[in-house]
Amino acid sequence: MQFPETFDVIVIGGGHAGTEAALAAARMGCSTLLLTHSIDTLGQMSCNPAIGGIGKSHLVREIDALGGAMGLATDRAGIQFRVLNARKGPAVRATRAQADRVLYRSAIRETLERQENLHIFQQSVDDLMISGDRVIGARTQMGVDFLADRVILTTGTFLGGKIHIGLETSAGGRAGDAPANALAQRLRALPFRVARLKTGTPPRIDARSVDFQRLQEQWGDQPEPVMSFLGNTGMHPEQRCCWIAHTNEQTHDIIRTGLDRSPMYSGVIEGVGPRYCPSIEDKIHRFADKTSHQIFLEPEGLTTNELYPNGISTSLPFDIQVALVRSIAGLESAVITRPGYAIEYDFFDPRDLRHSLETRAVRGLYFAGQINGTTGYEEAAAQGLLAGINAALASRGEQPWCPRRDEAYIGVLVDDLISMGTLEPYRMFTSRAEYRLLLREDNADLRLTDHGRRLGLVTDARWQTFEEKREGIEREQARLRQHYVQAGSPQAQQLRARLGSDLSREYSLADLLKRPEIEYADIAPLFEGASADPQVAEQVAIQAKYAGYIERQQAEIERMVRFESLRLPDTLDYDIVEGLSHEVRLKLAAARPETLGHAGRLPGVTPAAVSLLLVHLKKAG
Amino acid sequence: MQFPETFDVIVIGGGHAGTEAALAAARMGCSTLLLTHSIDTLGQMSCNPAIGGIGKSHLVREIDALGGAMGLATDRAGIQFRVLNARKGPAVRATRAQADRVLYRSAIRETLERQENLHIFQQSVDDLMISGDRVIGARTQMGVDFLADRVILTTGTFLGGKIHIGLETSAGGRAGDAPANALAQRLRALPFRVARLKTGTPPRIDARSVDFQRLQEQWGDQPEPVMSFLGNTGMHPEQRCCWIAHTNEQTHDIIRTGLDRSPMYSGVIEGVGPRYCPSIEDKIHRFADKTSHQIFLEPEGLTTNELYPNGISTSLPFDIQVALVRSIAGLESAVITRPGYAIEYDFFDPRDLRHSLETRAVRGLYFAGQINGTTGYEEAAAQGLLAGINAALASRGEQPWCPRRDEAYIGVLVDDLISMGTLEPYRMFTSRAEYRLLLREDNADLRLTDHGRRLGLVTDARWQTFEEKREGIEREQARLRQHYVQAGSPQAQQLRARLGSDLSREYSLADLLKRPEIEYADIAPLFEGASADPQVAEQVAIQAKYAGYIERQQAEIERMVRFESLRLPDTLDYDIVEGLSHEVRLKLAAARPETLGHAGRLPGVTPAAVSLLLVHLKKAG
Ligand SMILES: Cc1cc2nc3c(=O)[nH]c(=O)nc-3n(C[C@H](O)[C@H](O)[C@H](O)COP(=O)(O)OP(=O)(O)OC[C@H]3O[C@@H](n4cnc5c(N)ncnc54)[C@H](O)[C@@H]3O)c2cc1C
Ligand SMILES: Cc1cc2nc3c(=O)[nH]c(=O)nc-3n(C[C@H](O)[C@H](O)[C@H](O)COP(=O)(O)OP(=O)(O)OC[C@H]3O[C@@H](n4cnc5c(N)ncnc54)[C@H](O)[C@@H]3O)c2cc1C
Repeated sequence: MQFPETFDVIVIGGGHAGTEAALAAARMGCSTLLLTHSIDTLGQMSCNPAIGGIGKSHLVREIDALGGAMGLATDRAGIQFRVLNARKGPAVRATRAQADRVLYRSAIRETLERQENLHIFQQSVDDLMISGDRVIGARTQMGVDFLADRVILTTGTFLGGKIHIGLETSAGGRAGDAPANALAQRLRALPFRVARLKTGTPPRIDARSVDFQRLQEQWGDQPEPVMSFLGNTGMHPEQRCCWIAHTNEQTHDIIRTGLDRSPMYSGVIEGVGPRYCPSIEDKIHRFADKTSHQIFLEPEGLTTNELYPNGISTSLPFDIQVALVRSIAGLESAVITRPGYAIEYDFFDPRDLRHSLETRAVRGLYFAGQINGTTGYEEAAAQGLLAGINAALASRGEQPWCPRRDEAYIGVLVDDLISMGTLEPYRMFTSRAEYRLLLREDNADLRLTDHGRRLGLVTDARWQTFEEKREGIEREQARLRQHYVQAGSPQAQQLRARLGSDLSREYSLADLLKRPEIEYADIAPLFEGASADPQVAEQVAIQAKYAGYIERQQAEIERMVRFESLRLPDTLDYDIVEGLSHEVRLKLAAARPETLGHAGRLPGVTPAAVSLLLVHLKKAG
Repeated sequence: MQFPETFDVIVIGGGHAGTEAALAAARMGCSTLLLTHSIDTLGQMSCNPAIGGIGKSHLVREIDALGGAMGLATDRAGIQFRVLNARKGPAVRATRAQADRVLYRSAIRETLERQENLHIFQQSVDDLMISGDRVIGARTQMGVDFLADRVILTTGTFLGGKIHIGLETSAGGRAGDAPANALAQRLRALPFRVARLKTGTPPRIDARSVDFQRLQEQWGDQPEPVMSFLGNTGMHPEQRCCWIAHTNEQTHDIIRTGLDRSPMYSGVIEGVGPRYCPSIEDKIHRFADKTSHQIFLEPEGLTTNELYPNGISTSLPFDIQVALVRSIAGLESAVITRPGYAIEYDFFDPRDLRHSLETRAVRGLYFAGQINGTTGYEEAAAQGLLAGINAALASRGEQPWCPRRDEAYIGVLVDDLISMGTLEPYRMFTSRAEYRLLLREDNADLRLTDHGRRLGLVTDARWQTFEEKREGIEREQARLRQHYVQAGSPQAQQLRARLGSDLSREYSLADLLKRPEIEYADIAPLFEGASADPQVAEQVAIQAKYAGYIERQQAEIERMVRFESLRLPDTLDYDIVEGLSHEVRLKLAAARPETLGHAGRLPGVTPAAVSLLLVHLKKAG
């Protein structure tokens, strides 16, 4: 049967990608349908109960700046907040929160249920409906056809999902959930390149069986950080501590005795695992000389005794899991509540996508999240948001919005995937961005909320808060430029201890702030009228301190943007461009792009290849 | 591999039966393992978000009196409390609560996680381990053997679960959950009689799409009832209302047009459905002359928009579901969030069980819950509790505890199942009990908490509260017997309006309370020292008002208990006992029971048959 209403956008899958996709499309005014296996698992965190961290919090803040749900849900569910790299430069500073799983799910579900234009329906999708080269809808298990001209697929680890514990395997989308096999089969018949990846999760431990005396406590930071630009600590539930434990040589010996029954080392698993989130057996193997690895025991929530032992993801047989856990000091009597496991699943080569996340082969069909070869909630959510935006724009007949690499980590993420593909689960790092100092987590709103407002993603309330902040920054910057500290004045006196010497002449507060010895807090109160908003203070300080670097990066970007439109001669012989790989030469020769920008957007033509082209053009005059 | 620890009791399945079974065994001091598909679905309500109701609240109170979890979890999750039949006699009075699904799950999970001696492990069980005629453990999907001499199987609707929506079918334990097929196959190979049953659930509706103006509100009762003997309204979350809607002739026409694609009416479903919880298509069919049926729209929780339309359970095709819902006044634009469906599953003939719920064929193996052919959370929980108790007793080497029909609805439930089996999903009704006036929900603690304390099920805190109540009742009854109202006294004056005439002589308060015109509240304050505890007041009033009936029933029970030990002559010719069915005659002749009680406990020998035997013995002298 055909469902009576048709939709502008259908989103398949209610994980992190699907959630943001559905919310974005609905916020932009599209009638949106979210089809998912179970309403009860909306927003479920499949693995670690944490949001954010280096590179990842940058994505969360960008999603938040564009009106997404992840940041606020984290503030409503976070039971420990920390700023990582707090003593390093602002580019790599990152907020990370432990989240209560149940509270996180509720926060996401509530946001979804309150969203106008969004209809949620619980059913497995077994088939896509395709007419010619266009998607026209999705068919559920019970044979109902839901029609829409844009469909976003966000099925995570569920396509052909296969769970491994030692040499035992079973079908599953994640532990406790059935896989999506009918849909996987259907997709394999479409003209997409498909391959297998794998990821893993550690066993969970009953806190009542842990000897915490032998472990080191780790509390969140004070003052308590927040995740969302609209967040505040008043939203946070009760805060909890984590504990630090360590593997030892005995642990490693135990692991080694299990390797012959490891699905990874015995060749049972064909999928490639995440290099940066390795299993404990991987770590033992790759860092054979290390005699100990750190483990964080993270509470899974306020109302449960389950602990997540971050650092010992494993698919070793269960007897080895028990022995390895119990070999760790403090965990001698540990009781496991859920076994660790690895999961293998189908993913699609992201080089078959456009920057809008629309597939090249099927118009109106978008892929977002783990299905594109990424790993991580934040990476999934970022893609979901972008796919939701672009599906909505397409449905309005507008051009896609694809943030550039210098505008957002979302841009970096998508550009990396589309131009380079991925051979292993892709996760975000700050090192992937060329313009790190511009793409800070603290300024995601200044970079993106304007765009979000224009796109229709940003509510009035968020917009007002944002404008107040932006004006506050400008006002405060003007104030700092206006006020001068005279040599020998009482204010100069106050700064003496900081500077180690007297001021030789008058300086504006703005100039003083640029000095490495001076903190914003030193100069702000010297004259009346400082901003009370800590977000304003943070921006003013960072922008002053890093002004030089920031300007340099901005100039570089402007140059790049100019190069974008640099024309490539029709007669250009790619064979003589130095350093290009054979594959790239073939691609360029076949496509004959008109501009350098166009060349750079060809699948398989990397940013490095573009630089080589640029050098060649410059040499050629 | 073999799990390093062995357990006294293993419970398979974390539904309502499994939860109470595991808690009971652990409370009694047994090292207990709960194995279940997913820790996140512990205590999940598969269908309607409500606990209690007629016959069912009686079970909940009995479970509660024995220290079980269901009552308190209901008080922590209940968003609307009512007393049904409030104006009828106390035997059929019943408390019913709408429950927030998420809060209910959390309350149950927290109780489980806090229980000493209880270990929870997430894994599907694929096999039972049996040695000779004994169970020795359970094997999970990943090939781990967990050893225990007692295993309680509480797998609900998951064994060979098959979901139907119209003529579409899929495998599932309930919507969104995989079935337990490996285990089902294994069980079919054991010497148990197995058959299929079915049950169904209605589509869920998004409250934002309902026109509440056209519906009638229904609020909970004031003063707010509580479920647990230890409960109080301070535990209750925010309270909500339900709404009443009605089907109409158009609705019924729509349903009739769908019957040719109904899995029930087209013969696709072989299982038998619950007669007392019929699907809407059943109701239309069976009560063809009724032009309207009532529907209660019940909120699924505080933080969700989903409504449960109680009364339109259906497995009709989805297009019919949409049309039938939208034909109802107030639901013209209703948006469905989850389709209704029917589920078919394996159940085992309970006549193959002992009164302890141990299977006759495999020692140490107990069955509890929906697997025994019952329906309902409360029925499942009651059986789980009993199986948990008896597994624990067996593990201590003690005799089973099997409450009699005159002691508890739990006794009625188990006795009905074991002696009569069931051809359709069995649910509890007060009419199933012979001694209804004794088995009230209000006195479940007075009937059972003593037993529970002796068995080791009742905590000190519960026991103290109970003893205070029991003493309070005795004190208050003594007080009422002590104080006399003299004719012409000021107190008599106060009662005049109630009685319509003057007192002719002095009466004790106790005697006055027996009069139909007099309420406890009328006489309690006439003299100082009345109890402040409303539970005490309730007991004193009921025991006084119904003293005559109660004594008669008690006498009858004593007579029955005597008959229990009435010897059946060795030479008794069952063919001449009037009224016995052929089947029963054969059974009795084969078994040659020694006493009437023994005869009554033979599988297939019904209470009615026992009465016939009694009549025969009396006639025979
Ligand atoms: C075992 C395991 C370990 C992991 N370990 C890590 C780790 O160490 N580090 C890390 O960063 N990330 C890890 N992850 C990855 C992280 O969970 C994912 O990156 C993230 O959840 C992906 O989000 P998503 O929205 O793409 O998919 P998911 O969160 O998987 O959500 C997919 C959704 O789609 C639904 N769905 C699927 N198929 C259908 C269908 N046919 N019809 C209807 N609905 C459907 C599902 O029910 C689900 O709601 C792990 C994941 C798993 C399962
Ligand atoms: C669609 C539907 C409609 C219903 N309608 C009604 C109704 O109208 N009225 C009514 O009173 N009742 C209804 N019920 C019944 C009610 O849900 C059950 O009576 C009650 O839940 C039974 O409790 P239980 O503990 O026996 O099983 P369940 O609540 O079904 O729990 C079974 C548990 O066992 C676990 N499990 C199963 N197999 C395995 C395995 N192999 N390994 C590990 N774990 C396993 C499951 O994950 C689950 O946790 C309905 C149920 C369904 C599914």
